[in-house]
Amino acid sequence: MEMTLFLIVPVASILALSFAYYFYRNMLKQDEGTPEMRKIAKHVRDGANAYLKQQYKVVGWVFLTLCILFAWMAYGPGLQNKWVWFAFLTGGFFSGLAGFIGMRTATMASARTANAARDSLNLGLKIAFRSGAVMGLVVVGLGLLDISVWFVVLQYAFDSLQEGEKMIVLTTTMLTFGMGASTQALFARVGGGIFTKAADVGADLVGKVEAGIPEDDPRNPATIADNVGDNVGDVAGMGADLYESYCGSILATAALGASAFHFSAEAQLNAVMAPMLIAAVGIVLSILGIFLVRTDENATQNQLLKSLGKGINFSSVFIAIFSFGIIYMLGMDLWIGGSIVTGLIVGLIIGKSTEFYTSQAFRPTQKIAESAETGPATVVISGIGTGMISTAIPVLSIVVGIILSYLFAAQFDFSNVGVGLYGIGIAAVGMLSTLGITLATDAYGPIADNAGGNAEMSGLGEEVRVRTDALDSLGNTTAATGKGFAIGSAALTGLALLASYIEELKVGLLRLGNETLNVGGESIPLHKASFVDFMHYYEVNLMNPKVLVGLFIGSMMAFLFCGLTMNAVGRAAQKMVAEVRRQFKTYKGILKGEEEPDYSRCVEISTKGAQLEMILPSIIAIVIPIIVGLILGVAGVMGLLVGGLSSGFVLAVFMANAGGAWDNAKKYVEEGNLGGKGSDVHKATVIGDTVGDPFKDTSGPSLNILIKLMSMVSIVMAGVTVAFHLL
Amino acid sequence: MEMTLFLIVPVASILALSFAYYFYRNMLKQDEGTPEMRKIAKHVRDGANAYLKQQYKVVGWVFLTLCILFAWMAYGPGLQNKWVWFAFLTGGFFSGLAGFIGMRTATMASARTANAARDSLNLGLKIAFRSGAVMGLVVVGLGLLDISVWFVVLQYAFDSLQEGEKMIVLTTTMLTFGMGASTQALFARVGGGIFTKAADVGADLVGKVEAGIPEDDPRNPATIADNVGDNVGDVAGMGADLYESYCGSILATAALGASAFHFSAEAQLNAVMAPMLIAAVGIVLSILGIFLVRTDENATQNQLLKSLGKGINFSSVFIAIFSFGIIYMLGMDLWIGGSIVTGLIVGLIIGKSTEFYTSQAFRPTQKIAESAETGPATVVISGIGTGMISTAIPVLSIVVGIILSYLFAAQFDFSNVGVGLYGIGIAAVGMLSTLGITLATDAYGPIADNAGGNAEMSGLGEEVRVRTDALDSLGNTTAATGKGFAIGSAALTGLALLASYIEELKVGLLRLGNETLNVGGESIPLHKASFVDFMHYYEVNLMNPKVLVGLFIGSMMAFLFCGLTMNAVGRAAQKMVAEVRRQFKTYKGILKGEEEPDYSRCVEISTKGAQLEMILPSIIAIVIPIIVGLILGVAGVMGLLVGGLSSGFVLAVFMANAGGAWDNAKKYVEEGNLGGKGSDVHKATVIGDTVGDPFKDTSGPSLNILIKLMSMVSIVMAGVTVAFHLL
Repeated sequence: MEMTLFLIVPVASILALSFAYYFYRNMLKQDEGTPEMRKIAKHVRDGANAYLKQQYKVVGWVFLTLCILFAWMAYGPGLQNKWVWFAFLTGGFFSGLAGFIGMRTATMASARTANAARDSLNLGLKIAFRSGAVMGLVVVGLGLLDISVWFVVLQYAFDSLQEGEKMIVLTTTMLTFGMGASTQALFARVGGGIFTKAADVGADLVGKVEAGIPEDDPRNPATIADNVGDNVGDVAGMGADLYESYCGSILATAALGASAFHFSAEAQLNAVMAPMLIAAVGIVLSILGIFLVRTDENATQNQLLKSLGKGINFSSVFIAIFSFGIIYMLGMDLWIGGSIVTGLIVGLIIGKSTEFYTSQAFRPTQKIAESAETGPATVVISGIGTGMISTAIPVLSIVVGIILSYLFAAQFDFSNVGVGLYGIGIAAVGMLSTLGITLATDAYGPIADNAGGNAEMSGLGEEVRVRTDALDSLGNTTAATGKGFAIGSAALTGLALLASYIEELKVGLLRLGNETLNVGGESIPLHKASFVDFMHYYEVNLMNPKVLVGLFIGSMMAFLFCGLTMNAVGRAAQKMVAEVRRQFKTYKGILKGEEEPDYSRCVEISTKGAQLEMILPSIIAIVIPIIVGLILGVAGVMGLLVGGLSSGFVLAVFMANAGGAWDNAKKYVEEGNLGGKGSDVHKATVIGDTVGDPFKDTSGPSLNILIKLMSMVSIVMAGVTVAFHLL
Repeated sequence: MEMTLFLIVPVASILALSFAYYFYRNMLKQDEGTPEMRKIAKHVRDGANAYLKQQYKVVGWVFLTLCILFAWMAYGPGLQNKWVWFAFLTGGFFSGLAGFIGMRTATMASARTANAARDSLNLGLKIAFRSGAVMGLVVVGLGLLDISVWFVVLQYAFDSLQEGEKMIVLTTTMLTFGMGASTQALFARVGGGIFTKAADVGADLVGKVEAGIPEDDPRNPATIADNVGDNVGDVAGMGADLYESYCGSILATAALGASAFHFSAEAQLNAVMAPMLIAAVGIVLSILGIFLVRTDENATQNQLLKSLGKGINFSSVFIAIFSFGIIYMLGMDLWIGGSIVTGLIVGLIIGKSTEFYTSQAFRPTQKIAESAETGPATVVISGIGTGMISTAIPVLSIVVGIILSYLFAAQFDFSNVGVGLYGIGIAAVGMLSTLGITLATDAYGPIADNAGGNAEMSGLGEEVRVRTDALDSLGNTTAATGKGFAIGSAALTGLALLASYIEELKVGLLRLGNETLNVGGESIPLHKASFVDFMHYYEVNLMNPKVLVGLFIGSMMAFLFCGLTMNAVGRAAQKMVAEVRRQFKTYKGILKGEEEPDYSRCVEISTKGAQLEMILPSIIAIVIPIIVGLILGVAGVMGLLVGGLSSGFVLAVFMANAGGAWDNAKKYVEEGNLGGKGSDVHKATVIGDTVGDPFKDTSGPSLNILIKLMSMVSIVMAGVTVAFHLL
């Protein structure tokens, strides 16, 4: 019965990939427009490909190094099993592939969207959104496909192990696959984030502010690089990122299920399969939801938004209902369905709160715009202030979500720790179950943005530009909701990974030949040891200086990482500014529109800058957890992870919201308020927006990955930490 | 023998107060200069007094409310002893008094310093520094005086208690005194911080940027308010703040000593007295150090700095030596002396690192200035980036300091938790033992700043202004070191308070009639229960969702608090900008220098703004720990405190350093680099500096207090939390 149910998982994943292919083919059939439009699209496509090739080279070296290390750990001192290095590799590969396919689709779709917008708004929306859906479906499809393949393969590989232990070793091995995805995602987000913002900031500072030419003006040498950046950062980077979130939440929850329900082989298998099945049902409902998105020919922007919302709401409501069905069929406690619903609702609240704090339709962003009347300094101050205040609602929702999803699963008994933590994981899976469609609305944004760029550069009429602007603006709102999901799920997944770390410790101890845990003078057999036993054994309490020290380092890591990426953008942007200034100065014809600027030189500068600058922060994220483990042991690592998680989550919300609010405060002024375009108020908001660029598109989203990557690294290195630590 | 040794404590405190009076009288004897200088000084003095009066009114109501609450808790359900409300009151009173005396001295000294600078640089330095010393000595003198009086009074009051228990109840009751000081300090820092930055930002934005008149120009209506702000924020606010740090570290350490050494009445008394004695010796050596500060008539700025350094170094080295003597005389383990030295060194490293990241003599700040070549946006980005990176060294030093001071005291055994935590407290006391002289160098800064303002406004010659500028610039460097001490000591004191919280729980449980703690099926008598037993009993481990939830809320609190104070400054500054613009517009004669602006109206606006805006953040800091305790109980509170401590510490370092670096990047340009004054680069750095103002002078320093106040509130409310919590 159970394995029959499991079949839904690979079937759903193949369904997702098939529809992705179908949407992709359909998009390709559309006309790419005038020769000028094709040329520009090709420029952008080539630039994006060139960048990704460079990035994959760097990432390849990192993967090679880590694979050798993992292989040595397995075949040498035997601190890991022999599947780890390979699982790690495939995770990285598929995460990269998801991003690559999404980006390829996006670069193919932008000119076609612009061309369709020449006919009608609705046609433009359809192409952009269905192209975004390719990404959404590829991410969830590849994710579940990998998970199902590994699940089947490892079932055979670990066949010799005892029933209860087998599932624990299997699920913790699969987590390594998550580390591969995280590592790839980190480089993609950091590298792509630096690329896109260096180009954006550079283009804005010289083009908009100094030369006074509009955004996406073909006379701006950095404008192609800016459009390339949207694709490598907001599409490829986001794809890799959410691929990792998606798999991470499912895998961590499966590992927690294997542990919490180890008392019965059947219950254990069901608990491991539950997150996969929820995800599978989510895929099917996401596909249905995607088909629900359509509008009249004369739809207003509000109707467009409603149409997108209808698709997402449909998927969410039915996932909530069907999940209870899955839980029932698996013979699990029905209250666990409450954890799924909790996850869905928390994601929704965070999305709404993001919208409230970052949309120019509400007071907070309008106030930031008003503060521009006293100059750029007060814009920056009030953006930072509002961003910091905006952390309250997301934190409180997550906090209530943690308690509720824990209590639902634990049958309202706090001491039922294992099942309670499983409930938190299930909430994360619930939140991400609609990823197929939410990511579609998210990936749609940069496609619409690029379509607008293409329309501007290829000199299409004002009317077309108005339509692409409408699409773009819609994308900003959906992007805010998407970011809420990404951050919220990172926090819950981070907690689930934290608990999985304990599981991995158990496996590590078994591997080293330990069979019992000595807690308070009592010997507890390892397979019976609870989470609380491990906490006592390793003294992971708040009076242990190692835990406290770990917490400080974790908080610091979040800031250090942001600081490094912020400065990286600053440096790379300065090089871009210098180059754009040089071109304007050397070739006088450019600004007059008589001479074509050297676009590819700017792409090259961003590429080089991103390559160089992404290495240090990424390496630190991988190395610090290892060092902390080697010096402080388990207690220090747990402190590090929790410190990084709590500070990183709040910092990420702050940065994302401050950046979004500055962006829309500028848009608010551009819509004609407070003096409108070209006024001093507008100039001040442009400065705010520029400051916010690396906040919301580089440092902020990278933090989501940092939180999870640090946990993943610790999980993979758990065997080493168990075998050796200095203090 | 012991009580004879104790006599050193009140004697040292009276010595400090006597020398403070002596310096104060000597300063008053100096000539206050021309009638114009006297008039301006009086303006500033009146403004500062008017502000403080308003502030004390608001604070009075808060104290009244809390006192009634505490009195009810004691006389009603008996959740506290009857001394708490009164101890709370005296702590608040003396904290306010220390700030008031410091401010009174500063407002008296500024014109006299300016006048002395007409004669010579050295004379100016001497007056400013000795006036700063008044503040330093008053803070440490009043602190130790209160502590000694309470120590003696409570010895009699609790005479009926058992020997071992008596000292525990006594020291935890004395901690309440710390809560009074913290509450006063928070209002002083937040209110003063909002006042000073609203005036500063307002004065700069309209005066410097729009009207193009220099800083402190008498034509600027906000200039008096700006100078008043230095006094109420940087002097009175800082005095109350450090008074609280100083007492908090001594009292928390005493409480930990009472608990760790409860096995022997003699050892316990010694451990309680040790922090007081270290502080007492520190006072004597600080006074000697102050007399060492003197320079030649023709001293360069570097020589001035060396002279100040000589005083501090002298005090530090001898405190380290003498502390070992105290430890020896008390018959304690000599290794505990290592904890004192650790504290001193960590304070020094944090100070040096602050200097490196914020002084224009080093690359980080120069790079921020260079990034101004591409406009204000890149200045802000690189300032934030550098500020975030600058958190690494302070965190790593604190982390190493925690481990070392713990291990020294615990005789290199991690499981020796009680004594180890006592060691961390001792490190905090060590770090703050030189406060008498470090605070003197710190309080000297705003006096020199005001002297410069006075010289400018009263039209003294260029030569005098150059001298006061040299004094002011020196003050910026010493202020950086001072901030390092304030932040570092807050982190260590926060940890000590965290441990004291457990002590308070013990007292609360005893009061409710409990005699044992049930840990893992075993009944442990309360007086024998260790820190680890409490951790197990309340499940304060990292797999408890209540702890995790508390950590998230704690991190969020740090950000929310900063956001509220940042926005408060933004709002108050906008009102100031509107007023200055109004005066310039209505009275055309002002800018021509023909008409005197209405200074007092600006003072009034800042006063009202600060009064209004300080309430919400301060109330939140007091109320949230109470609510968390009522809902989540002990585990949630401990999570909250640790989350607030780790995130708050890192955030505070970030904000202080980013703000300092922006300030000096501007100074670097003003010194003639990168185009010098009036260039576009300069304008961009002015915007950076304005953004940094609330960072470094409002939100950042207030965080230090928030960290400790949340602990203090939890300590005072521990009895309630023990008696009732929802989950």
